[in-house]
Amino acid sequence: MRIRTLDAPAHIGERVHLCGWMHSWRDMGQFGFLVLRDGAGTFQAVLDNANEIAKLRGLQFESVLDVEGLITAEPRAAVGAEMHDCRIEVLSPVLEPLPFEINKKEFKPGLDTFLDYAPIGLRNLQKRALFRISAELMTGYREYLNEQGFVEIQTPKIVGSATESGANVFVLDYFGRPAYLAQSPQFYKQIMVGVFERVFEIGPVFRAEKHNTARHTNEYVSMDLEMGFVDDHTDVMKMLTGVLRHMFTRVTEGCAKEVALLKLKVPAIGESIPSIRMPDAQRIILERYKEDCRGEPDLAPQHEAWLCEYAAKELGSEFLFVTHYPTAKRPFYALPDEQEPTLTKSFDLLFRGCEVVTGGQRIHRYEQLLENAAKWGIKAEQISGYLQAFKYGMPPHGGFGMGLERLLMQLTGQTNLREVTLFPRDQDRLAP
Amino acid sequence: MRIRTLDAPAHIGERVHLCGWMHSWRDMGQFGFLVLRDGAGTFQAVLDNANEIAKLRGLQFESVLDVEGLITAEPRAAVGAEMHDCRIEVLSPVLEPLPFEINKKEFKPGLDTFLDYAPIGLRNLQKRALFRISAELMTGYREYLNEQGFVEIQTPKIVGSATESGANVFVLDYFGRPAYLAQSPQFYKQIMVGVFERVFEIGPVFRAEKHNTARHTNEYVSMDLEMGFVDDHTDVMKMLTGVLRHMFTRVTEGCAKEVALLKLKVPAIGESIPSIRMPDAQRIILERYKEDCRGEPDLAPQHEAWLCEYAAKELGSEFLFVTHYPTAKRPFYALPDEQEPTLTKSFDLLFRGCEVVTGGQRIHRYEQLLENAAKWGIKAEQISGYLQAFKYGMPPHGGFGMGLERLLMQLTGQTNLREVTLFPRDQDRLAP
Repeated sequence: MRIRTLDAPAHIGERVHLCGWMHSWRDMGQFGFLVLRDGAGTFQAVLDNANEIAKLRGLQFESVLDVEGLITAEPRAAVGAEMHDCRIEVLSPVLEPLPFEINKKEFKPGLDTFLDYAPIGLRNLQKRALFRISAELMTGYREYLNEQGFVEIQTPKIVGSATESGANVFVLDYFGRPAYLAQSPQFYKQIMVGVFERVFEIGPVFRAEKHNTARHTNEYVSMDLEMGFVDDHTDVMKMLTGVLRHMFTRVTEGCAKEVALLKLKVPAIGESIPSIRMPDAQRIILERYKEDCRGEPDLAPQHEAWLCEYAAKELGSEFLFVTHYPTAKRPFYALPDEQEPTLTKSFDLLFRGCEVVTGGQRIHRYEQLLENAAKWGIKAEQISGYLQAFKYGMPPHGGFGMGLERLLMQLTGQTNLREVTLFPRDQDRLAP
Repeated sequence: MRIRTLDAPAHIGERVHLCGWMHSWRDMGQFGFLVLRDGAGTFQAVLDNANEIAKLRGLQFESVLDVEGLITAEPRAAVGAEMHDCRIEVLSPVLEPLPFEINKKEFKPGLDTFLDYAPIGLRNLQKRALFRISAELMTGYREYLNEQGFVEIQTPKIVGSATESGANVFVLDYFGRPAYLAQSPQFYKQIMVGVFERVFEIGPVFRAEKHNTARHTNEYVSMDLEMGFVDDHTDVMKMLTGVLRHMFTRVTEGCAKEVALLKLKVPAIGESIPSIRMPDAQRIILERYKEDCRGEPDLAPQHEAWLCEYAAKELGSEFLFVTHYPTAKRPFYALPDEQEPTLTKSFDLLFRGCEVVTGGQRIHRYEQLLENAAKWGIKAEQISGYLQAFKYGMPPHGGFGMGLERLLMQLTGQTNLREVTLFPRDQDRLAP
């Protein structure tokens, strides 16, 4: 019977099958050390039979093997066991050397080389650890929101009109007429607040942005939610704090091996995350970093980095909410603050120097939304389905969109989104 | 403090806030009955104060209210309680009558009318129950697979070459050059078998099919998985049986209210689902239904319906596996049966008259795959990323794709995929 490498130490004294990839092989002549990698981990087999050793000669790394043998206690092995008296069956031989050595501790190919050979490069233990953490983040996200009464939705990615930001949209040939790829599930999740009050979605979003930076790609995974009957944007911030805390706890507990392998420091999130208003943030930047950005409607990457430095030093937090972005820089559906109508009840969440979440309270009154759409140059016909929901009763509500890869990048200390995206898409890259 | 309608019966004797939509209102003059709907359920409030009643006069259904009052035991109410001595705050008034009456027990607008007004129509209790079940199916799917050691992945939906089936693909303007929308995550999930052995994905797939039938749309949600180290396709069928059983258990337990409301019979899935080979299926059709389709490479919808009738009567099962579809009708990566090379180690799962899953074992040897691709007229350059994985060692593996909406349609007895798709896309419909 096949067992996983991870479970092997529990089978000392038994003959079992281990199946996996030939991760490494040291041929010492009369004997040799084979490390087998499977989906869960790695395990060492010691070969001392000339016939069995002969089967591996001429094979390249990544050959797929079925190894039957006796699990034996071995105090010198990290897991306390190894396999002896092995019989090998080669399931898929590999005859060509790999484009790079994925079994080294230091695996640092150039980014383009890595991306060209991602189907193989992703098999590297450190690389694949990133995507196991990615899976755990998604699981934690859904788990927490399900407990909080949210309903999962899947909304269309092909849409009939592009309104959120006309410039950054991909155009599609839809049976002879133009259609567009959704830039976010924003309108749909708001509509669904009218149905379920609380909804979430994890899915792809598409941005035809022409700037090719380390923190932008043209397709990414957005973790969205929208919730009804909020008092204001701070209710959304509280939900975000709770879900992030749970996601990170899941990573710590469910990915302990990966966290150790990557030497990660997963931040603990307390009861709340510190928050400052945009005008105050700009004042801090002026005072501490001598740059006057008080007139600007948005924060530049350098400003975000400074504010995170400030938060870490002064507030003891790796996270920082910045609230009250100017109306001018937010979409037409962002709710202006009644006290200061040039600012919105919105927020960004900064994490280790980079924005990872954008959210806020939305306009819920039909007339106000109509009026704002007109001000932003959006015609009611273009968004008639969306407006329907508001015409027929929407509660005060808000939500956010969180970039899965951005979050993963900041959590794991990678410097380019392409390192934490499975098969990234940018202006130059459509394959693999 | 606000409580949900569902929790109200547990608060008898307390003054609480209920928030939600004015689902119905019967004005009896001196008093009136208000049914409030929130994301979780409905609850009745009895109004007998002229000032409060006045606030509702002139308002249309779906107005959003905050109702504060005393929860009172009431044996005649279905939930044993109602609200009295109410104070009403109108959060969002609705001033126009709805396009249709969504609060009726019999809510059966024409399909096109419903779809045009889906943002409102989905608020109907029966309609929204469908999508709560949809969410539960997804949760059950992931939960089971996570327990079985699968890792969730999110693969790109914009791809550089369309190879699976060139005819049914949407073309995109990708920075001045053509790109395509993914018809399935097939290549990526297979590549990821090389990384994690077992992977799954729930995400959108896009088919530019020109036929506009009740069981086809142009964008749907596919529940995919792929698993390594299988003995043959029956290992995949076992995994599918297990995951479906768990999904249906989740629906029965987690959506008991919705199941009752829709009067559903959720099938119990036993240890295994009956299975017949394609040639035998065609023989049964000839014998019982006097149609000779033995030469045909695929089953027509009528054939699937007959086979399901047969399975229900003779085998006592609402599900039926049909295996060994001809090589000619399956993709180039389908593994031919060594015993009968004109047939593949593949399967479809039929459920109540309709195919809901397609899967099978794949070719894992590099040379065989290269050879087959060439036979199917696919050039190696077009699928070089995919082929990389095979060149560098792939284990025997297989998987399936299951249409979320198809499954939901069959489970809930709907007759058109558009009734179980949030905002469906077909040749004529791109909005809302």
